[in-house]
Amino acid sequence: MNALNIVKIGGNIIDNPEALSGFIKDFAEMDGYKILVHGGGKEASRLTKDMGLIPQMIDGRRVTDESTIKIVTMVYAGLINKRIISGLQAAGCNSIGLTGADGNSIVASKRSPIPVDYGLVGDINPDNINQDFIKALLRQGITPVFCAIMHDAKGSLLNCNADSVASAIACAMSRMYDKTVLTYCFEQPGVMRDINNADSVIPHINESDFKNLREQGIINHGMIPKIENALNAVNSGKVSKVIIKHAKDLLNNIGTVISQ
Amino acid sequence: MNALNIVKIGGNIIDNPEALSGFIKDFAEMDGYKILVHGGGKEASRLTKDMGLIPQMIDGRRVTDESTIKIVTMVYAGLINKRIISGLQAAGCNSIGLTGADGNSIVASKRSPIPVDYGLVGDINPDNINQDFIKALLRQGITPVFCAIMHDAKGSLLNCNADSVASAIACAMSRMYDKTVLTYCFEQPGVMRDINNADSVIPHINESDFKNLREQGIINHGMIPKIENALNAVNSGKVSKVIIKHAKDLLNNIGTVISQ
Repeated sequence: MNALNIVKIGGNIIDNPEALSGFIKDFAEMDGYKILVHGGGKEASRLTKDMGLIPQMIDGRRVTDESTIKIVTMVYAGLINKRIISGLQAAGCNSIGLTGADGNSIVASKRSPIPVDYGLVGDINPDNINQDFIKALLRQGITPVFCAIMHDAKGSLLNCNADSVASAIACAMSRMYDKTVLTYCFEQPGVMRDINNADSVIPHINESDFKNLREQGIINHGMIPKIENALNAVNSGKVSKVIIKHAKDLLNNIGTVISQ
Repeated sequence: MNALNIVKIGGNIIDNPEALSGFIKDFAEMDGYKILVHGGGKEASRLTKDMGLIPQMIDGRRVTDESTIKIVTMVYAGLINKRIISGLQAAGCNSIGLTGADGNSIVASKRSPIPVDYGLVGDINPDNINQDFIKALLRQGITPVFCAIMHDAKGSLLNCNADSVASAIACAMSRMYDKTVLTYCFEQPGVMRDINNADSVIPHINESDFKNLREQGIINHGMIPKIENALNAVNSGKVSKVIIKHAKDLLNNIGTVISQ
């Protein structure tokens, strides 16, 4: 069977060299076709501070101005992406680091400045993902590794949300594979009923479970967009299932499974 | 005929947004198979300074320590490379940004720490260039754009000289094409007899001319390694000729031609 794994690795793992190194080894060992999407971590904020710049925020959310897009392009597309690629190569996984501009692989749309202008921030429609290019890499035995910097095809780079990038890639690529699994790896063992109890992982969530858990206040603020992205992938795309798990469990069959 | 153009663009052009934008448009217009190699420019030094770091120098040459490789990876592989790629995409040239780690395209050897330890600096043997991968991109209509960050295939990134990278790529790829031309673009109209007279461009230089011009002191310090790289490409590889010219003349048939 023609199967594809898309794995998203979050910022907290990227900030921890030991955790990242363990994750890279595990990801290199995964069999079959696979794609990695990585988040940013704290390095961009550190660099902003080192450079004496003050992040612009609106309602607690960062505005991506010209200085910020420079910094995130340096950190995400340069430092973090190439650190992961050189690590994967050393672990025997032939991989290639990509922004959406590379190979014109993903075109994003700049988010409307109304009602809030977040600057150079983009959103992705799965129809604007160059599936043929990505599939050609996979067939050559090369694993694509995406950061969340995309382009508008008019010369501007745009900062995107890495969870949404992973979900959009999974939706688009699922049209070409019999089975597509999207895995969100982060620093918790899954979606938990009680954030302080690692044994409270909810093994399975579907659309109506999500509605209930949200109404009961069991699913917390940060987890909501992640599960929305996951449900979006299984509903609007042909993605078989989405798994939310701890990065150290990449190769283990545990975590929270989200399906229709 | 199966022809390939390899173009190297230097740091002074990269530092000038107007010159870079003009160059990107011209490069996008070049017909046939082509590869771009870019240098670094002053952005890395500015960032080093902004971050309050002091560049380590030995005999006037920069030492690439851990902080420096981080900075050059951010600036060369991130900022500059992706700026060029998004510009090329906007100009209709499908391109992909690469370090040597991406697609395991180029493996460099860390330079010996004896007699001088320059740190994480690498040299490239044309035999360690993944010609098949590069050729597969070209055949898909994708133009590779290399920065001079390579890897050692053991997990370390290495800073290399962009002129040497261009020469090594030209040597390696020339084995697969009937005609390979390497063009070094910079901020002067070619190799000049008199650095202050733009009309003094030497139209043609071969190995014995170089020897004479060097003995006469006509070729200055900075130009010597560039011509050595050029002669290396036409002598040890199957590279047809090397052209040294102003970046604004990319599409014009002028400059200095170096051949056997």
